[in-house]
Amino acid sequence: MPLMLNTIRIVLVNPSHPGNIGATARAMKNMGLSSLYLVDPHQFPHQEATVRAAGADDILANTVLVNTLEEAVADCRLVFGSSARSRSLPWPNCTPRECAEKVIQPAVQPAAIVFGRESSGLSNEELALCHYHVHIPTVDDFASLNLAAAVQVISYEIYLASIEPPVWSDQEDQPATVEQIFGFLKQLELLLVDIEFLDPNHPKLLLQRLQRLFNRARLEEKEIHILRGILSTIEKRLLVS
Amino acid sequence: MPLMLNTIRIVLVNPSHPGNIGATARAMKNMGLSSLYLVDPHQFPHQEATVRAAGADDILANTVLVNTLEEAVADCRLVFGSSARSRSLPWPNCTPRECAEKVIQPAVQPAAIVFGRESSGLSNEELALCHYHVHIPTVDDFASLNLAAAVQVISYEIYLASIEPPVWSDQEDQPATVEQIFGFLKQLELLLVDIEFLDPNHPKLLLQRLQRLFNRARLEEKEIHILRGILSTIEKRLLVS
Repeated sequence: MPLMLNTIRIVLVNPSHPGNIGATARAMKNMGLSSLYLVDPHQFPHQEATVRAAGADDILANTVLVNTLEEAVADCRLVFGSSARSRSLPWPNCTPRECAEKVIQPAVQPAAIVFGRESSGLSNEELALCHYHVHIPTVDDFASLNLAAAVQVISYEIYLASIEPPVWSDQEDQPATVEQIFGFLKQLELLLVDIEFLDPNHPKLLLQRLQRLFNRARLEEKEIHILRGILSTIEKRLLVS
Repeated sequence: MPLMLNTIRIVLVNPSHPGNIGATARAMKNMGLSSLYLVDPHQFPHQEATVRAAGADDILANTVLVNTLEEAVADCRLVFGSSARSRSLPWPNCTPRECAEKVIQPAVQPAAIVFGRESSGLSNEELALCHYHVHIPTVDDFASLNLAAAVQVISYEIYLASIEPPVWSDQEDQPATVEQIFGFLKQLELLLVDIEFLDPNHPKLLLQRLQRLFNRARLEEKEIHILRGILSTIEKRLLVS
């Protein structure tokens, strides 16, 4: 079995039904995945989860519980958000197959694929944390997959891709973590407020646009250092003046 | 939606858990399939099937109940049997993707894909009724998918095969021209020299890195305007000081 699959993380945000958690663990284990994170689940551990896991008890036992999505993906270098529909803010999209090809690359580990609530999916704020949105093709008028079924489809594509990994890399250095990118964007935001380019009372759209741009660029660690160096130098010059 | 999908039949042999029947109906409906046959199910109709169908009630209502697998596939021109492992009797095998390509052909309709019992799959006699065996790839030591999860994977491949490959775009606005990107990078370079972040005598490596970063981001025109707006505002503040 390929080595890399244990660093690919499945994240479920606020799952309501413990049965879906168990079925998710089973689907993951079938496909060689083992790292499950739960963000504030309604009920866990739970007998129904154990029953539906059908032997994937090790995954349930090692499940990591966190309070926020930010915590779940802080150390990740590539994050996908599962999205049923296109949103007001366009974001880099990919198919499950494209997602699988990208997520198995050694350079992007740890990587995460995030699945939303059974009822309402991921919020726009949660989707904005992700580098890509992955959409499972469905018919238009019945588009909502069961949560564990969605995990099954994505995990299946990941396993297929891991058996025959394609050669793909347009990057040289270590990709930055979500936390590093967030730190850079925060510093940029403060500077933009400082120079009065950004109205702190209405920051939303501009900041989302910049976040989208830099997520798309798939920043490397070295590039984060350069960009933050530029921002720090500008800040100093503005102070001196 | 493609016309042919309503003649592709999903057949479940002796399903034990009514929840799996409902989840199968939901998975089928997500992927445009509608024809469900049940061979001697333990319990059907059942409340748990309706709950897990989550709105695929039409498929449950139109489900065809038969006593034997022979009845279920008698009129079919191509039959696949889902098989978790290779059997003593060698048989034509295919992957889910190959199965999907074959099963959507108009000439083979009606066609069927047969899934076995939760506990023990299909018998050798039942597998011998099938033209092909389809095997969902899994890790060796945890190879048994949930019944509805297996239907989900096969249905997903069928739906993908039935639609034209989707054209994805992760960009909304007009991509910037080379000239526009060059103009932005030139302005950035002048600012970097101005704040003494860049040594004008040895500019090469840093500028190349920034160029690579922003090329990778595939900047849009609107983003160029935002970025140049930020640079111009910084320049003005530095002058004022």
